[in-house]
Amino acid sequence: MTTTELRAPDVPTAPDSAPETAPEPLDTDVLRRFLDGRFADLREQFRREAPADLFTPSHDLSTREHRDLTRARLRTLAELGGHELGYSSRWGGGDSPGGQVAQFDMLGYGDASLMIKSGVQWGLFGGAVQALGTERHHSTLLGPLLRLELVGCFGMTETGHGSDVASIGTTATYDPAAQEFVVHTPDASCRKDYIGGAAEDADVAVVFAQLVTGGESRGVHAFVVPLRVDGVDVPGVWRGDDGRKMGLNGLDNGRLAFDHVRVPRTALLNRYADVAEDGTYSSPIASANSRFFTMLGALVKGRVSVSGGALSQTKVALEIALRYAQRRTQFKRPGGDGEVVLLDYLAHQRRLLIPLATTYALTFAQDELMGEMDELLRVQLAGGEADANRQRAFESHAAGLKVASTWHATRTIQTCREACGGNGFLADSRLPQLKADTDVFTTFEGDNTVLLQLVAKGQLTAYAQQFSDLDTLGMARFATRDFVTTYAGRSPARSLVADVVEAGRVPEDLHDRGWQLRMLAERERHVVESLAKRMRKARSRPEAERFEAVDELQDHLLLAGRAHVDRVVAEAFAAAIARCDDPAVAALLSDVFDLHALSVLEAEKGWYLQHRRMTTLRAKAITTAVNALCRKLRPRTGELLDGFGIPREWLASSLVPERG
Amino acid sequence: MTTTELRAPDVPTAPDSAPETAPEPLDTDVLRRFLDGRFADLREQFRREAPADLFTPSHDLSTREHRDLTRARLRTLAELGGHELGYSSRWGGGDSPGGQVAQFDMLGYGDASLMIKSGVQWGLFGGAVQALGTERHHSTLLGPLLRLELVGCFGMTETGHGSDVASIGTTATYDPAAQEFVVHTPDASCRKDYIGGAAEDADVAVVFAQLVTGGESRGVHAFVVPLRVDGVDVPGVWRGDDGRKMGLNGLDNGRLAFDHVRVPRTALLNRYADVAEDGTYSSPIASANSRFFTMLGALVKGRVSVSGGALSQTKVALEIALRYAQRRTQFKRPGGDGEVVLLDYLAHQRRLLIPLATTYALTFAQDELMGEMDELLRVQLAGGEADANRQRAFESHAAGLKVASTWHATRTIQTCREACGGNGFLADSRLPQLKADTDVFTTFEGDNTVLLQLVAKGQLTAYAQQFSDLDTLGMARFATRDFVTTYAGRSPARSLVADVVEAGRVPEDLHDRGWQLRMLAERERHVVESLAKRMRKARSRPEAERFEAVDELQDHLLLAGRAHVDRVVAEAFAAAIARCDDPAVAALLSDVFDLHALSVLEAEKGWYLQHRRMTTLRAKAITTAVNALCRKLRPRTGELLDGFGIPREWLASSLVPERG
Repeated sequence: MTTTELRAPDVPTAPDSAPETAPEPLDTDVLRRFLDGRFADLREQFRREAPADLFTPSHDLSTREHRDLTRARLRTLAELGGHELGYSSRWGGGDSPGGQVAQFDMLGYGDASLMIKSGVQWGLFGGAVQALGTERHHSTLLGPLLRLELVGCFGMTETGHGSDVASIGTTATYDPAAQEFVVHTPDASCRKDYIGGAAEDADVAVVFAQLVTGGESRGVHAFVVPLRVDGVDVPGVWRGDDGRKMGLNGLDNGRLAFDHVRVPRTALLNRYADVAEDGTYSSPIASANSRFFTMLGALVKGRVSVSGGALSQTKVALEIALRYAQRRTQFKRPGGDGEVVLLDYLAHQRRLLIPLATTYALTFAQDELMGEMDELLRVQLAGGEADANRQRAFESHAAGLKVASTWHATRTIQTCREACGGNGFLADSRLPQLKADTDVFTTFEGDNTVLLQLVAKGQLTAYAQQFSDLDTLGMARFATRDFVTTYAGRSPARSLVADVVEAGRVPEDLHDRGWQLRMLAERERHVVESLAKRMRKARSRPEAERFEAVDELQDHLLLAGRAHVDRVVAEAFAAAIARCDDPAVAALLSDVFDLHALSVLEAEKGWYLQHRRMTTLRAKAITTAVNALCRKLRPRTGELLDGFGIPREWLASSLVPERG
Repeated sequence: MTTTELRAPDVPTAPDSAPETAPEPLDTDVLRRFLDGRFADLREQFRREAPADLFTPSHDLSTREHRDLTRARLRTLAELGGHELGYSSRWGGGDSPGGQVAQFDMLGYGDASLMIKSGVQWGLFGGAVQALGTERHHSTLLGPLLRLELVGCFGMTETGHGSDVASIGTTATYDPAAQEFVVHTPDASCRKDYIGGAAEDADVAVVFAQLVTGGESRGVHAFVVPLRVDGVDVPGVWRGDDGRKMGLNGLDNGRLAFDHVRVPRTALLNRYADVAEDGTYSSPIASANSRFFTMLGALVKGRVSVSGGALSQTKVALEIALRYAQRRTQFKRPGGDGEVVLLDYLAHQRRLLIPLATTYALTFAQDELMGEMDELLRVQLAGGEADANRQRAFESHAAGLKVASTWHATRTIQTCREACGGNGFLADSRLPQLKADTDVFTTFEGDNTVLLQLVAKGQLTAYAQQFSDLDTLGMARFATRDFVTTYAGRSPARSLVADVVEAGRVPEDLHDRGWQLRMLAERERHVVESLAKRMRKARSRPEAERFEAVDELQDHLLLAGRAHVDRVVAEAFAAAIARCDDPAVAALLSDVFDLHALSVLEAEKGWYLQHRRMTTLRAKAITTAVNALCRKLRPRTGELLDGFGIPREWLASSLVPERG
């Protein structure tokens, strides 16, 4: 053995034992393009044009080195372009908010620190200026920030206030004499914290603070606050460094506190509210609550982006673990020659092919969400306001999908690490960094547990509106079909799948698309309906008992959120298959759909059996069907991975050879 | 605000809202001592005597610095003592194998790199010499290795052969002319890999290799192979470095390959087999298969140790997340003053108190396992052989508990990280390092998925033996009670819980201990019984179809393993409560038991409903009961954490104040 051999990270011990004979000839280019979805052209262009060194691993770097590398890569990205797509063409943008998010999630195939750093600059910071500011901010800030001449950060979260943005403690008090706002941090719990760019790089911050004018607090508003001018720190601004983190160490997360820092009146991002020179407060939105949620809603692009980025990182992990499992052997084949390839074991197929199928499902749901976002944000970019109902439904879908994608990423990347054994623990495999970097995705841009409750509360509101006029008898008559077509909320996939979602008897065939979708819709209906009843009861309790009574329903609320997302995701996948005009691709995707949908029903069989929506025989048959689908899709693994369209050199894992 | 305030990692925003009023006065010292179990004295001594700087965080260190620190700490530990307990007093040991494992898991409250490094030296390397060697090895090696004058490593796993140790490719061929073994690595897939100490520190390795003598292969045996003599590398030995890892970077994991390296005939660890000068092979164990498993069985202490270490790290994570959740607030209390403390939310209680209860359960199961191990290894230390049946049952329990504890650690530490939000992502919280260090526990000392199948296969064997004489009618008459008292395998807890495990009608009360245990036993019985039937069928298939037919049962096999472990763990916990003579402690532990047991039944309700072992009403009642138990135990959180007995300064987390 030579030293080179000794250093080789792993050894292919067998060619893939399953010949990849597709039942129908399938063109993986067509599959990839179909999976690429609405922004396929942009994705293809990025694959061609992105410099390969944007993606070399960074796991061996110190915090200092990693931050430097990420900074340098951000400059490369600024030259490459794409980040400007989401901005108005009036200021050098591309009027394509969906395109910008597509570019963001393409970065997710590489170093996540770079992806998130670009997201801080051009998604959160720039996005807030674009969405919450007006021409005076756009004309002065957008050009420089797009060209990276101005580096910013997004100061929303505080040490003591994360999910509850309405309760942040930073104040911005208007002083009419000086025509300035005084930005102040009253105590340490109100420090801005975990802010990307705050430790070192940001010259300016969008700071969310309680606006006070005329002695009256007007709720949370956003202000542009310089942190450093011509390289000199602004007096009264304190910076702290969050230090080493679990992952994303290319980002300089930090803390900010303000000691009576003065900014001009025009620092207020005044699209939804303004303060006149004399301190008079005005807003086109009458209700303070509506104003707050309109402002937050304008920023929802961040959730869509994180969902996409989580899926990209998940795809990398799955491709690493599955390509490894196609080559790695373990244990002799009983009564046969050689050793068994890992992916020939049913347990390994279940571990990896089910998440692969779910990743496909989430990708189609994500594409649908991006399409919806693109349409809504184009209206906003043009200075208008989107339809309120549609905007609300979109925000709910965005929150739900962010939850689904990021928890899926956390679970799947963990599974991939374990499925690669000791090899998966080595940094060279890339799996440790994928795990560490994505871990916070379940927390930032909205903690998943909180978001899921928001989703469920949205469902309750929709439910209440739907039934405010119905009597009890009317409610009892309300069937699944009505629920799905009227109540369940606007979904672009809805019309496409309506024809298969027919109420009817339970079919023999577990692969019946209509039955699968009905099962998911029925679970959501039942969970939301029973939740609504329990919630009505709880809310009618005396005030002193009300918190405990409502809190008692928290696990029911979370279940409602999950049930909703499960349905929306499956419907989006079904709708995509319905519009696929390549028979071979559609046939393969149908199998993938079945594996995804049946694995959800299998995982949730406790609920279905408990609520008599599934017989015990059928529960058993579902497990048999899931196993059979794993067997059926196992020879298609290579094609399904090719469908992700990850250039091999981007994988950058010692577990996957550069060719083959 | 001052700079100091700005740098403070977090701010207590509320005193714990739930006054810790115990229903019965409870002495947490008694609780701690009870949880400390059989080796309580040793644990107390370690708490008193271990230097505090053994436990300061290491997350900011480079690989080089972390390795240096861990080396230095190992020397401190060698002086402190405790590691020698598991060795024979003839060679300076303490004849207390259980004590050694207790000392190991106490290290798990600190830096896991140190714990694992000590495990490599005194558990794996020293343990192999003690268990597989004879006096000639003991007299020359044990003294120096206990004093750390000789640093060793444990060369079992190969790049291409992890779980399948029988298939390793390294050879040790006897040359009678020279009376030497020639150790050789035939190809890169047979490199020793992921070996702690192999990259830098080890001077010597215990190498597992296929012994060849007289042209005949005799299977896997262990040899003592010097890697470095007087600081000079032995010619023909190649070392590689595994580099940066997800965690445990204080350990220098690496690769070894041998190019015809010669060692004397006496390098063979010859307790179970020997080669005479002329090359004649002899062994007191006739069957090669038995010999192999006897040798592996002698090393099972490693699995017990990893299980204990995983639990210690889990306890640290739980204490950090729960103490944080007792102080951290989020969202205003509706209709009340101030904000709600996180742990007052039901969802947060479910996330953290259920794993807390399961950690208690696993701790009692671990203590029982250690007691059993201690008895068996004392026999071995005295030169005898333990009862084969008892040894086999112990090995199965050790494998099962290792699986349960390490997956529990992976899941729970992940949950703790998420439950602390952005704060949990910061290295200063310590949660990232706990997650990263323990991640490989599910892989090393036996991959969990493989171990779980071994456990299940053991159950199948026991089942087959039990019924080899019974006809079909006899089998049909076989009831749960018989299964539990005769078949389910020797368990020290068995006799203690036998009186509560009475077959009988389903009680009204969900807190009925006998019913809870019967439910777990009945699930195991049914799963194993149906598996046995399916397995018989599969094995009767023609040889060409047999692998696929048996593989088809892999998910059933894994379920059988899980069901077995669930029962064993619950029984150990129930047995512990039965022998607790402090009424207040026993009452509290009873509630903890209920939460653990009912949460298992809740999680597995799909199975119970599918197999008609639970009514839908009861399934619903179980969820209600789990929620009520969370409420009931929430004010006891502080006491339950005190029971872990982790000195506050060992927590070393920015999320927990040093006092209070």
